[in-house]
Parts: sequence; C-alpha cells; structure tokens
Amino acid sequence: MRCEVVAIGTELLLGQIVDTNSSWIGEQLALVGIDSHFQVKVGDNFERMERTIRHALERSDAVICCGGLGPTQDDITREVIAAIMGVELHRDEAVVDKIREMFESRGRVMVDNNRRQADIPEGASLIAQMPGTAPGLVCPIGDKVIYAVPGVPHEMRTMMQGTILADLQHRAGETAVIRSRVLRTWGNSESGLAESLADRIDELDGIGNPTLAFQASGMDGIKVRITAKAADEAEAAAVIDAEEILIRALLGDVIFGIDDQSMEVVVLNMLEERGLTLAVAESMTGGVLAARLTEIDHDLTTFRGAALSREADAGGSSGADSAATAAVRVRQDFNTGVGLAVVTARAVDEQPSGTVFMHLAIGDGQHAQSVSLPGDRARFRNYAVINVLDFLRKTLKGL
Amino acid sequence: MRCEVVAIGTELLLGQIVDTNSSWIGEQLALVGIDSHFQVKVGDNFERMERTIRHALERSDAVICCGGLGPTQDDITREVIAAIMGVELHRDEAVVDKIREMFESRGRVMVDNNRRQADIPEGASLIAQMPGTAPGLVCPIGDKVIYAVPGVPHEMRTMMQGTILADLQHRAGETAVIRSRVLRTWGNSESGLAESLADRIDELDGIGNPTLAFQASGMDGIKVRITAKAADEAEAAAVIDAEEILIRALLGDVIFGIDDQSMEVVVLNMLEERGLTLAVAESMTGGVLAARLTEIDHDLTTFRGAALSREADAGGSSGADSAATAAVRVRQDFNTGVGLAVVTARAVDEQPSGTVFMHLAIGDGQHAQSVSLPGDRARFRNYAVINVLDFLRKTLKGL
Repeated sequence: MRCEVVAIGTELLLGQIVDTNSSWIGEQLALVGIDSHFQVKVGDNFERMERTIRHALERSDAVICCGGLGPTQDDITREVIAAIMGVELHRDEAVVDKIREMFESRGRVMVDNNRRQADIPEGASLIAQMPGTAPGLVCPIGDKVIYAVPGVPHEMRTMMQGTILADLQHRAGETAVIRSRVLRTWGNSESGLAESLADRIDELDGIGNPTLAFQASGMDGIKVRITAKAADEAEAAAVIDAEEILIRALLGDVIFGIDDQSMEVVVLNMLEERGLTLAVAESMTGGVLAARLTEIDHDLTTFRGAALSREADAGGSSGADSAATAAVRVRQDFNTGVGLAVVTARAVDEQPSGTVFMHLAIGDGQHAQSVSLPGDRARFRNYAVINVLDFLRKTLKGL
Repeated sequence: MRCEVVAIGTELLLGQIVDTNSSWIGEQLALVGIDSHFQVKVGDNFERMERTIRHALERSDAVICCGGLGPTQDDITREVIAAIMGVELHRDEAVVDKIREMFESRGRVMVDNNRRQADIPEGASLIAQMPGTAPGLVCPIGDKVIYAVPGVPHEMRTMMQGTILADLQHRAGETAVIRSRVLRTWGNSESGLAESLADRIDELDGIGNPTLAFQASGMDGIKVRITAKAADEAEAAAVIDAEEILIRALLGDVIFGIDDQSMEVVVLNMLEERGLTLAVAESMTGGVLAARLTEIDHDLTTFRGAALSREADAGGSSGADSAATAAVRVRQDFNTGVGLAVVTARAVDEQPSGTVFMHLAIGDGQHAQSVSLPGDRARFRNYAVINVLDFLRKTLKGL
C-alpha cells in the first residue's frame, strides 16, 4: 500500500509557511506500515494541482491532499478533485448548517463564501471529524482513493487519526491493529543503547513482533520505539506493556519518560508527588531552564521562580562553589523545598568553556555534579538545561 | 524561468526531519523573480530519484537537488545525475585533497568513504563555495540545468547565495540586479499599514519599480518588503534607500528594524548606545523575555539579569502597582540603569486574563502602560514579550 502526500498552497512554495504537515503525515503512515515514496508541494493553480494529483494517483494507491479547503476563491481542492473524479460538486446543506452553527457559537456571522466549504464531489463521503469549518473528504476513484484534509495542522491531525489511517489500513487488507509506544532516554549513546538491547533485538528479529527502533532526537534524547501488531487494542497494549518491562530492566534509569512526556514534565511530576517546590538559579543558560519549566507549570505552582544573573559565574573561587552558593541562596529567597543552580566555569577560572556545574540544595542534603559538554553556544545552552533537569530527576529518584 | 526543487532523503518522507530547505529556496527564488511551481520530496532510491528529477526537468528549466551528497552508500545524488546526463563520474583529486585538508584542520582523519564526495559527473562544474565536505555541482543538460547542493542548511544557503541564484538569473537573461530590504513593523495591522501606504502603492503601481509587499509574520510583526530592480548593486541600494525614507515618513515609529534585526537586537542596541544596563522582572511570561534577551546578549553585558516569580502577580492591589513595585525592586537588586517589569492581572483581581501591565523604572522616571491581548496561553505569553520589548523601545526613543 503506497500513499502519496500533496501539500497545496502557493504560500508553501514561496516559503512563507514551512510545510510541516507532510512530515507529520509521513511519520504516521510509516508507523502503520504504509509507504510514502513521494511528497509534493504545489501552488493554488487548477491545472498544476490536477496534473500533480493525477500523477500521484498513477504511482500510488492513495493520495492525501492537504490544504485548499478554505472559503476563499484560492481554495480549489474540491473543484480539482471533482474534475479528476469526473463528477459535479453538490452543496451539502447539512454541512452549511454545521458551519453556520460554528460561527454562531463563537458569536460571529457566517459569510456567504463559507458556503463553498460545503461543496462535495458526487460520490465522495465526509470525514466524520470536523474540528473546523472545512469538512474533510474521502473520494474513491476506482479501487484507489483521494483524501482531502485542511491545511490547519490540528484539523488535519484529527482527521488522520480519526478516519484516514484506519481507512488506509482497511484498504490495505490490514485487519490487525498497529500501535507503538516511545520510551524516552537520556544519558546513553545510540550505540550504547543498541548494545544493551542487542540480545533482545536478535530475539525479536526471530519472533517478528513487536519491533524496536531507535530515533536520535537531539536535545530530546534518544527514543526507543516499541511497535506491536495485534488483533485488537487490548492485545497490542499487552504486547507493548510486556516489552516495556523487559526493556526497562535492560536499560535502567536512562529511561525518563514515555511518548510525549518531556524531561520537564517528568521532573515537575516527581516534585509534586513528593510535595516539593523548586526555585532555580541560572547564568549562561539564560532563562531557558525557567522557560521550559513554566511551559508546563504555567502558574508557577511547583516551580516557584528563578533568578538569572551573571553573579553566579563571576562569584566564588570555583564553578562548584558558585553553584553551591547560588543553589542555597535561591532556595532561601523563594522559600522552596529545593534550590537548583546551574553555573558555567567560563568567567570563574581557566577551565574549558564547556563545563557545567550543577548543584541541588534539598532538605539537609547537598548534591553536586559537573559535566563537560561540546557544541556551539546555543547547543551548549540547551544541552546544559536537559542535563541539569536529568540531574534533578536522578537525585530525586535516589532520595 | 522555472526552477523546481527536489529534496532528497528518506528521513524527510518519514518525518524524522522537516524539510525547511525547500521553503527557504522557494523564498529566495521568488525574490529574484524565478517561479517555482513544484517542490518534491523523494527518498534515497535510485529509480525514484531518477524518475523525479527527469520529470522535474521536463516541466521546468532548472532543478535544484538538495541532499544526498554525503559520504555514505545512501548518498547517490551524484550517481543519479550522471545517469540522467548520460555520462560517467570521475574522481577529482583536487577535491579529495581539499576534503582531506578539512578533516586534518579539525584534527581528524579522512575515511575512505569521503573520497566518494569528490566524484563529479563528466561535464559538470563545481560550485566555488564549499563550506563543508560536500562539493556542490552545476550540471548542464542541453539548455537546462541541474544543481546539486548538500542538505546541510548553511552549506546549501552559502551555495545558493554565492552561485546558484546569480547563475539562474544569468540563464534567464536577466542582467538586472534584484535586491530587497525588509522594514519590520510592530503595533499596526496589515490593513492599517496598507491604508497608510495606499497612495504610495498606487504611485508605484504606475512606475513599476521598486515594489512593496506585506508579509504578516505573527510574533515577528508585519514585514514590509521593498524590492528594487536596477542595473547594478549601487543603483538598487539607492532606489531602496530612497523608498525606505518615504515609507518611514508615512509609517513612523511602528518600524522597529530592518531585515534580520529582531526587536531584542534593536532594544539591546539602543540600551548600549545610551550606556544603560537592564534587569527585568517576569511572572507569567515565564522566562521567555529573559531567554530572548540572552539569545542576543549571551554574556549578560547589557542585560544583567532577571527575577522570575509569581510574587509580582500575587502582590499589590492592582496589576499596575505590582508592576511598578517589581520594576523598582529588580532595578535595585541588579543595580542597573533600567528596571523593567511585566505582570499580568490574573492573580491580582478580576480583570480578564489577557491584560498585561508593563512598568519601566529609569533614572528618576517611571513609565507605565497596559495592554489587552487575545490568544491561548503560549500565544499570549509570546505576544506579551514582544509588546513589552516594544514598550521599552518606544520609551527609550522618547527620552
């Protein structure tokens, strides 16, 4: 089963918007075992859209058209698909009503242009999910199919996950459920992880299900993805659960979370469970640590605050001493259970610029660690932040 | 003149990397008046790459292939282009030497695989710029041309700007120089800007050169691009300079910078020119203001530090009072010339959550302003930050 993606919009070709939709769709297709050999961007031009979609349909079994379903005269995906199907458009009055209700629920009036969004090619069916004013379409052409989804990412994603991925699997004769879970790691290299899992990977190569895959994700660490194929959801979950237990036993505490749990989510949860609050002192990480924590803890409930200054770096006789002083002070200033400082050696002494000193003041305990990091300034800064969060995670775990 | 972009790499189709190169290339092509009607992503597969590039060459005058020039066996762009040209590859020993020198200058040893990067199709020429180990190629095919550039963004950009854009213009018979400058604005809507410039746009429609275009860029404000066509660089610059003066007179101080000058660059420059240092107090903006400032002022030279706490929001009797208190305190704590506070009404009283109070303590002066902002939390936070930077900019200007 091959599925091609056609991203529609002149603004994509002009570079005014980066096409992230195709990448996301490609990732989802790969996860359910569907090949995507080509992904094309084309402008809002009837003839070129028609040529591109026809060409895609020749070499693939399915085509996902993303964009061009809006209310303006530029939005012609509906018309192009009808032409390719050789049918007329008809206006679905039930959809018009739905669009009108959406506008009214937001206290706005639907303009006449929006009626065009309810134009459906004869023989096409509506995608059940409709999070915005643009309905998605399933348009069969012989034994092939064109899907049309809006370019608005969250609308597209809702339709992909609610309808299209399952429909593609069904068309591929795939009755099995394919599910995956990502174990997120920090602190080991890809080759190190592969070595720890080598025997298990060999075993799985023989069994064939589940499968394991690594994905290096820079500052998000290395992801280990477990993918299972099973008769139903429950069975897939059971296979994944069992595999997760095995892998955790092999990899230990380099695994910090699963799926979309970032390091800051995990650390904030651990603090909350322990009834602890946190304050941090930063210097060359420049507010990035604080910004990542508030991205999750919006209201500064567990993470109470931060002090950003160059004092820490310019202060004591060594990076380690500066970090210790800053951690104790910030804990005091913000009256929190935990004080965390991250300091670089840069301005303090002659050590290489890539050394980060981390210090944690908690209860009567003091915990310190330093790490040398490579990379340019931006990279170094971000790596320092993930390292300090991981240091906090491991220390809390060990208490 | 039509130029198609082919982005090469299976990782692009699988969504492991988002293809930002095509967007950037599309933008650059548009700026010099070259159409790009299609942009295609294809995996590292000989037959599919060949088909895609041949197809692109049928419908366009030029094709830019981006990626697949690395040293591994996956990297087959050189081979595919040679097949399309109907020629053999030959190894350019001068390029081998150059690659070896690059490795040695970094204290590393060139492995044998890297020699493959010096394989050049007969009849192709090298792109003069070579910032990495992958040489770029200009491969003529009849009166058409294929360019090959690496997928590493900065290497690709260097080659585009150093060779390819000029070569394309030359091939298009374009002897004129096309240059543009972006005037960056904050604080007025696109329709508001268009209204202020309406008469001038009408005039320019008659003259035809330079041209003006708007680009809404979210939190980066609205960009007004002046594009001029002239016989040479000097003349183009003169046309743009004259137009900039006219537009500045019409738009006034909503223009905060040009080209890649962000709001924080502008504000930090203004502070430095005035010999002032800055400290900020934040609450719900959560370190984002500090992170943006340190992104530019890495060493905390002008921007001395920040205090992030929820005190400011929970404190005084009103948002305005809390901001005033916080601005004065942070200025004192960090011993700076300027203290800037940004506070929300959220925890203080019953005002809508979208109100931001900004306060500036400078010399003997106190400057305050509040603004209501729409949007979800992430959007609101980012808009609050750009607004407070703009408030600082305008206040400094008025002193």
